[in-house]
Amino acid sequence: MRPHNCVPIARYELTSGRYRGAVLLDETTLPLLARGCAVLGAGGGGDTYIGLLSALQAIEEHGPVPLVDLDDLPDDDLVMPCGFVGAPTVSIEKLGSTVEGARLREGLEAARGVPVAAIMAGEIGGSNGVQPVSWAARVRLPVVDADGMGRAFPEIPQVTMEIAGIPPHPAVMIDERGNRLVLTTLDGHWMERLERMASIEFGGAAASTEYALTVREARTATVRRSVSFAIRIGRALGTAEDSVASVLEEVSGRRLLEGKVTDVERRTTGGFVRGSAIVEGLGAETGRLLRLEIQNENLVALEDGEVRASVPDIITVLDAQTGEAISTERLRYGQRVTVIAFPCHPIWRDVDGLRLAGPRAFGYDFDYVPVEMLA
Amino acid sequence: MRPHNCVPIARYELTSGRYRGAVLLDETTLPLLARGCAVLGAGGGGDTYIGLLSALQAIEEHGPVPLVDLDDLPDDDLVMPCGFVGAPTVSIEKLGSTVEGARLREGLEAARGVPVAAIMAGEIGGSNGVQPVSWAARVRLPVVDADGMGRAFPEIPQVTMEIAGIPPHPAVMIDERGNRLVLTTLDGHWMERLERMASIEFGGAAASTEYALTVREARTATVRRSVSFAIRIGRALGTAEDSVASVLEEVSGRRLLEGKVTDVERRTTGGFVRGSAIVEGLGAETGRLLRLEIQNENLVALEDGEVRASVPDIITVLDAQTGEAISTERLRYGQRVTVIAFPCHPIWRDVDGLRLAGPRAFGYDFDYVPVEMLA
Repeated sequence: MRPHNCVPIARYELTSGRYRGAVLLDETTLPLLARGCAVLGAGGGGDTYIGLLSALQAIEEHGPVPLVDLDDLPDDDLVMPCGFVGAPTVSIEKLGSTVEGARLREGLEAARGVPVAAIMAGEIGGSNGVQPVSWAARVRLPVVDADGMGRAFPEIPQVTMEIAGIPPHPAVMIDERGNRLVLTTLDGHWMERLERMASIEFGGAAASTEYALTVREARTATVRRSVSFAIRIGRALGTAEDSVASVLEEVSGRRLLEGKVTDVERRTTGGFVRGSAIVEGLGAETGRLLRLEIQNENLVALEDGEVRASVPDIITVLDAQTGEAISTERLRYGQRVTVIAFPCHPIWRDVDGLRLAGPRAFGYDFDYVPVEMLA
Repeated sequence: MRPHNCVPIARYELTSGRYRGAVLLDETTLPLLARGCAVLGAGGGGDTYIGLLSALQAIEEHGPVPLVDLDDLPDDDLVMPCGFVGAPTVSIEKLGSTVEGARLREGLEAARGVPVAAIMAGEIGGSNGVQPVSWAARVRLPVVDADGMGRAFPEIPQVTMEIAGIPPHPAVMIDERGNRLVLTTLDGHWMERLERMASIEFGGAAASTEYALTVREARTATVRRSVSFAIRIGRALGTAEDSVASVLEEVSGRRLLEGKVTDVERRTTGGFVRGSAIVEGLGAETGRLLRLEIQNENLVALEDGEVRASVPDIITVLDAQTGEAISTERLRYGQRVTVIAFPCHPIWRDVDGLRLAGPRAFGYDFDYVPVEMLA
């Protein structure tokens, strides 16, 4: 499962023995991670280019970040899930300020009364899978090899911690100006409402942490080893002759259509990107037409009114040549793409997972069918 | 200055000696307070009928509340200013739940790390001048004879504490469901933005505390003895033959027009009530026409395009018969009214006060002229 050869930890302050032997998130692994996160993002989670630049700069200044397994951390250590909340269209114009990680940690530690021991991506998908590495480097904490989704989802409570019964609070949301909210809410739904409107007020995106949990809790309440998985996907992408085929093999996915983006309708509203895109088949697939419906992420792929894939399974648009994933806010007319779909983490296919993130949770009037069982 | 004969404190738990001799807010003084607050509210701060019922019920259950002067409290005691934030139109339909005071205190004490020693109305105007008595009764704390405005204003930072340089944070905002926000903001402007949108998300109104301060700070950073002042106004209203004249004498005010409400335009938008009302003169004043512009409170009174009175001075619509103030959300066609205006607390007439709450702070393109200097 180890995606990268271990290298000696030199510059990391907290690593005197404790994380010796850990995989390092450095200038070699981070670009692979970013590519893999883009594929896992289902088009959402923010453009990984931004997150990667941020993380590379942080490790250049503060040294690489150890990637640690939850089994290797003490039971009672506090894990801080974090990332940006908002519309991906905003995140490519409104960049972070580097201090988010420190401010979130400070806020969470004050609210919980215990120190944060490790950083975790709230969602591994998109920039949100990479960004926490940047924050971890700056606050000198390791990143755990896990996340709360195994992909990206648009809403705050759509995390495995919610299914496990971990409370979303105390949550902390900050902006780059120095504003800070500490939120305690009735449930994840209210956390979503309040953080969404705050993110809008902050300009369309803000950094936050919710569902903080102990290492012991995290071992069963998260998607384990998703950081390693993303790096493996990134490596599959980078090295193979046929990048798309290589990615499909890594994620056990299928090609839905190869073609050209012929229409994109996209608006930033209510703190989300909403819209749709049309991909028309090319070559052997001329005449076919795939419609993607979007709320930050690609939610549903429809062909002739039939569902070809849907949430919680992962629908990703890849550049047909390079195999690099294209996020929903970067989709545009004329792109040559291959649309793929692959299975989500099994937890999302259970009753509780589907209630939280199945088609009906997004207002669709059809039941979920696993992508591998669809025509 | 004592508006009410002292009566022995019996049922109040915290009053073993400490508040002996204090004026009591009880079933005699509270109705007077409510009437006075309505006059001081400039039409805003919420309908006092709701606040009065809430306070009467609370003192029936928990005993009367001592009204204490800031000079009689220890220097370092923490004062909690509080009230409802939102649109008055909402507050007459969405009532409080009685637990707000306890939740606000709990949140503020956790954020500050020191106990709250006394409750203060953030604004003496309208229901917000009375409501804190209800919360004080339930958490067994005294109410201080002061507030942050000497009237009601629509926005969070329009308080004397802002002028005095007291930070608005940590602020606490709660709803009746169990949601809680603890806010730290760059400044009062950001506190307003974030609390306003949270109040909208909570259904249009929510309870909050901002600008918490020590007794020592409060002695110079608040409008002193405004609770006593409100009670005196309420008494003037209740006893005199000509109620309106009696109120005018008490507040050093003037009659702008006696007439009939002939038009009301009012909408609840962006967390505020905005609109206007037209009062047409009756009797000797037939043919005259006064236009009131509203943002929660009556901001400006115009006649023939000329300003007759404006913020920060207080413009209040009284029932022409009873002299009772009519809040902006209760204005309706056909009401026989007397529109009065009277001077605000002097602090609002200084440069800093006018910057915060003068006509230009509300988007008007004219300079403030004290009401007593206008035609």
